[in-house]
Amino acid sequence: MIAPPPTEGPLTIEELQLATRNRGLPLEALCYDVTPGGLHYLLVHFDIPAIDQSAWRLSVGGNVRRALALSLDDIRARPRRTALVTLECAGNGRARLHPRPISQPWLNEAVSTAEWTGTPLTGVLEDAGIEPGTVEIVFVGADHGIEKGCEHDYARSLSLDDAQRSQVLLAYEMNGRPLEPQHGAPLRLLVPGWYGMTHVKWLVRIEALTEAFEGYQQTVAYRYKRDAEDRGDPVQGIRPRALLIPPGFPDFLTRSRTVARGRVEIRGRAWSGIAPIVRVEAGVDGIWRDAVLGEPLGPFAWRAWSFGWDATPGEHVLSCRATDAAGNAQPVEQPWNIQGMGNNAVQTVPVTVR
Amino acid sequence: MIAPPPTEGPLTIEELQLATRNRGLPLEALCYDVTPGGLHYLLVHFDIPAIDQSAWRLSVGGNVRRALALSLDDIRARPRRTALVTLECAGNGRARLHPRPISQPWLNEAVSTAEWTGTPLTGVLEDAGIEPGTVEIVFVGADHGIEKGCEHDYARSLSLDDAQRSQVLLAYEMNGRPLEPQHGAPLRLLVPGWYGMTHVKWLVRIEALTEAFEGYQQTVAYRYKRDAEDRGDPVQGIRPRALLIPPGFPDFLTRSRTVARGRVEIRGRAWSGIAPIVRVEAGVDGIWRDAVLGEPLGPFAWRAWSFGWDATPGEHVLSCRATDAAGNAQPVEQPWNIQGMGNNAVQTVPVTVR
Repeated sequence: MIAPPPTEGPLTIEELQLATRNRGLPLEALCYDVTPGGLHYLLVHFDIPAIDQSAWRLSVGGNVRRALALSLDDIRARPRRTALVTLECAGNGRARLHPRPISQPWLNEAVSTAEWTGTPLTGVLEDAGIEPGTVEIVFVGADHGIEKGCEHDYARSLSLDDAQRSQVLLAYEMNGRPLEPQHGAPLRLLVPGWYGMTHVKWLVRIEALTEAFEGYQQTVAYRYKRDAEDRGDPVQGIRPRALLIPPGFPDFLTRSRTVARGRVEIRGRAWSGIAPIVRVEAGVDGIWRDAVLGEPLGPFAWRAWSFGWDATPGEHVLSCRATDAAGNAQPVEQPWNIQGMGNNAVQTVPVTVR
Repeated sequence: MIAPPPTEGPLTIEELQLATRNRGLPLEALCYDVTPGGLHYLLVHFDIPAIDQSAWRLSVGGNVRRALALSLDDIRARPRRTALVTLECAGNGRARLHPRPISQPWLNEAVSTAEWTGTPLTGVLEDAGIEPGTVEIVFVGADHGIEKGCEHDYARSLSLDDAQRSQVLLAYEMNGRPLEPQHGAPLRLLVPGWYGMTHVKWLVRIEALTEAFEGYQQTVAYRYKRDAEDRGDPVQGIRPRALLIPPGFPDFLTRSRTVARGRVEIRGRAWSGIAPIVRVEAGVDGIWRDAVLGEPLGPFAWRAWSFGWDATPGEHVLSCRATDAAGNAQPVEQPWNIQGMGNNAVQTVPVTVR
């Protein structure tokens, strides 16, 4: 089917179907440096493949000297590297846009941090021997389906330069355990700093290309497009964002918050895939003050921050705003794009203090 | 706030907020006997508490001879029991009702099966020494919030007879690992056969009562009520239900399925908390035939079933229907109740064969 246009109308059954399948991070779980495995956010385009790991092979081919077919044991025998990496869905925040693009209707919960273990991609590319003339490396998953009329295996490419960065991993463990099916078992790509669509799950094939990859997920989806005709710029690095843990306790249905008066420690996380976080401001009723930053957990992981607030009875609005070392700051008004990609508008949390 | 009435109107922002927090089982994951931990469905009323396990104690009191305060080590040192148990949210299927009760808008994905390990509750009750006159045992969690204007800690009770059934566990492991926070760490109640609200998470207190517990989650929520004034009957055992794994592959947005012509093995799961599953019928375009049942996995776990279908090109509708040994079968037309509890209408899956 052709995509329905963005709308100011009510939520559709298609959006509900996606919301009940996919999984956000309940924001109180921002309290953990490493997101518990079962709480990690999840966006799956098609079905989660159930892969027989003993029969599975990763094929490496295309413009290479030696095509490879690697078993999971082969990959686990290679040099091992572990990294703490924050992933965020490129569509996070989409459901707050006006008009609202029709797709997975994230509010602001599509982010998590895990400890990923795998082997550097560079070593595998070296073993295959990338031939001159190679411009991109494409990564193909076992997941298959239709999107906007285009039937395809999920696939994304990186420029040869990006693929050869030392931090890019072929990951087989998450938080010290083998990947569960929904996170790409037995093997997924991990490109620290980039939005979630990059980290191809259920990886089955890697190919060196002498021309740019033109697959659906590269040239149609995941672009910053003004309108349906615009080719747009590619979605890549994660834009800076801060989120706070809603303080106090919730109402089940409305999720409105009740907070006890007095000193309240507002805590949250901030991250950017482009440059390190250097500043977080906390807002109370529109007045911004600098929050205290925690120690960095690593170059590609979110950073804790906190802010002491003397809560007085009444209605208040809390918010937060991150700035990275490249000078990128969150917008108060979100620039709009037709697929709702790369949103990082400031979160606002109304609370009642009593 | 007072609950909004059931509606034929569009989905509300409150329902979306709940759907992005809570988590359904993607139906292709019905292929696993034991649901991978991170795919287990999740319904959390308030916030997920972050509990310091070293400071945590389970208090056992009320109408007992000896009040107890047990550490997690105390509980882990007690007799150990493991059971495969299917849990289902009592609100599963709510969003398909007409009119639609406004709450967590499940379609039909709020079910999963895990291997739970813990110690029998009966032993703990014996050690505390239940005094004569006890009629119910109440279980109180660390989660706190407001529901329909009522502020409370989440709590549910069992009759003394139900609490003393041998299969009731105080569970501290799921699939062989300590509970993750979202599943009730460090300890939760497990009452095999009952809907999910019974299995109180983040358990901190057990009390023997000489009168029936009148808490919100017992007497207001989780009742089969015709209207807001009706006290209703309590929601308890899981009604029989079968679900099938949608065959073929999906369209991302609509989740509509494309299936290759020829022999297709339709597979699924069926369960009932009331009595063992004795029959599953598979429907193709309204024609019902008996499916083949797999071996039972245990008295409180779902049962696999399969059905061979010769798929011919065109549009078809697949469905399935479970019957248990007590003669309970799924309704084709779902009886309605104002909170949308205990739904088990027949699933229908339209597919396009090509």
